[in-house]
Amino acid sequence: MKTLMILAAAAAVTPAPKPAPAPSEIVAAAPKGDWVAIPASDLLVMDLASGKRVVIQLMPPPFSQGWVGNIRKLAAARFWDGTSINRVQDNYVVQWGDSTEKKVLPKGLVTVLESQYILKEPSGLGTYTWGGAGRDLNKQEVQISTYDSANPSPKYSDAFADNYGFVGGLPVAVVLGGDPPPPYPPRVHPVAAWPVHCYGMVGVGRDMPPDTGTGAELYTVIGHAPRHLDRNIALVGRVISGIEHLSSLPRGTGPLGFYEKPAERTGIMSIRIGTEVKDLARFEYLSTESASFAAYANARANRRDAFFIRPAGGADICNIPVPVRVAK
Amino acid sequence: MKTLMILAAAAAVTPAPKPAPAPSEIVAAAPKGDWVAIPASDLLVMDLASGKRVVIQLMPPPFSQGWVGNIRKLAAARFWDGTSINRVQDNYVVQWGDSTEKKVLPKGLVTVLESQYILKEPSGLGTYTWGGAGRDLNKQEVQISTYDSANPSPKYSDAFADNYGFVGGLPVAVVLGGDPPPPYPPRVHPVAAWPVHCYGMVGVGRDMPPDTGTGAELYTVIGHAPRHLDRNIALVGRVISGIEHLSSLPRGTGPLGFYEKPAERTGIMSIRIGTEVKDLARFEYLSTESASFAAYANARANRRDAFFIRPAGGADICNIPVPVRVAK
Repeated sequence: MKTLMILAAAAAVTPAPKPAPAPSEIVAAAPKGDWVAIPASDLLVMDLASGKRVVIQLMPPPFSQGWVGNIRKLAAARFWDGTSINRVQDNYVVQWGDSTEKKVLPKGLVTVLESQYILKEPSGLGTYTWGGAGRDLNKQEVQISTYDSANPSPKYSDAFADNYGFVGGLPVAVVLGGDPPPPYPPRVHPVAAWPVHCYGMVGVGRDMPPDTGTGAELYTVIGHAPRHLDRNIALVGRVISGIEHLSSLPRGTGPLGFYEKPAERTGIMSIRIGTEVKDLARFEYLSTESASFAAYANARANRRDAFFIRPAGGADICNIPVPVRVAK
Repeated sequence: MKTLMILAAAAAVTPAPKPAPAPSEIVAAAPKGDWVAIPASDLLVMDLASGKRVVIQLMPPPFSQGWVGNIRKLAAARFWDGTSINRVQDNYVVQWGDSTEKKVLPKGLVTVLESQYILKEPSGLGTYTWGGAGRDLNKQEVQISTYDSANPSPKYSDAFADNYGFVGGLPVAVVLGGDPPPPYPPRVHPVAAWPVHCYGMVGVGRDMPPDTGTGAELYTVIGHAPRHLDRNIALVGRVISGIEHLSSLPRGTGPLGFYEKPAERTGIMSIRIGTEVKDLARFEYLSTESASFAAYANARANRRDAFFIRPAGGADICNIPVPVRVAK
């Protein structure tokens, strides 16, 4: 009895007949042209005192650019060098910054308004794609089916918005409008969009409103997507490498998971924009407009590889992380 | 600038005017009568070689009872004593059992059919409640609103089923039926239900289908809810204490997060049913039929405490973990 041959996931342990490719197999087979290089200038590189490296892809325009601009200035000023990871709350966040709260911020940081948490009437989105290859994940690609497949079901969507998609490789929720109220369709025109708090997303710590944070205090999600934070806090990127160096840290035992003793904190050696880092790998993400991504998203929502007996018939956006790899 | 006063969560760090209570405050104020004692006979207690303890609430009837029965036999036979945690895959699962795959299983284990992953026509559910106080979380208690609150939105629900609720303190998805196909309502009669893979849920590792696993190999979820595993693997409980001792373990570097070296494994001293454990705390959960739970679920879906500027207008079931505490 092979009790260890459990839970199919990223890779197959033993060969077996495969009714359909697994998501990982689809990604592995994606042609080179389906991958989009992430410029080093859009990466934020955190080197920990432990020698471990965490790489963050910064939020692309048109989202959160005020905070992203501040983060570039903070990195250029070496603000985070010698700071630390101060908070690890289970199933929630890892947070880092200046634990003394006395370090002087560099000049030129802007104060960003709460209105920037959301992009309204996102005519400027231009190249956004909802699901793969310009298709709407929920309405075309992924049919959310009930247990009884003979009984066609309503089309469910995001539990926190009307729909979801991807911009520059990062997850975004959207509200549709332009048409009558319920009963439901059609509402096809995006009237608002915002980045969402999936696992590994990076946000800006802040004080009570109307404070919106500068970007000096950052956190990343290490648990089930805390979507209640969407539209309440700025999201500025996503950890694309090394999240395990943060998510496996000991949990803090103080309120909100803050460490109670300074010695518990993990030191941060430096945080730099990628262009300042000499030994940085080149990263690329699977274009969400590619046919490979559409197939991957479908396979995530409807696993038909050998381990599975019932495809889920759907997925929430955080179940479809955009694949990232080191460029070959 | 108080950059550490970030991200509202379980507790408040500084006093501030509170427009509405936070979920944690609602739970703290719940009357004693709203708490349900969990019998020690329904707890599975894992003591690690590190001295840390993990406590699991076993799945209540009518779900997964074939596997739960096996687990009781395995614990009684001390099967897991001296076994280990063998796999830690980031944003996915921690898995434990006999790494040698040679240990003899106790007699009397039953083989459970795949059909037992799902409860069909759950007339036997009886006391199940969808949301708080017998109300339907999505259709009555929690209105999923769009960004534009002046424009009433469709009522979203679970992305993987028609609806969700709780049975005996554990999360369950449900499919409704008995009425016409789309366009949507009304479909009010539950025709199938199954436990769902939220953070901390415990499942039964298995081989390729039609194997369903014995229960000797178990895992728990340590990331975003992998709902694609629902109805494909048996769920047998939920970690109610000590999940951080598992979720913070170093990630395995082998395929699927298995540890590559035996020395990386965390030893398991013993796993026992709670009635066999002398120094076990008494646990209780907040009744999902109580008014306190309804208020808590509403607050989770619509945060209106001081930190928040926009209530989410909804929640997925894994955003509403049933509160558990040590009995006072």
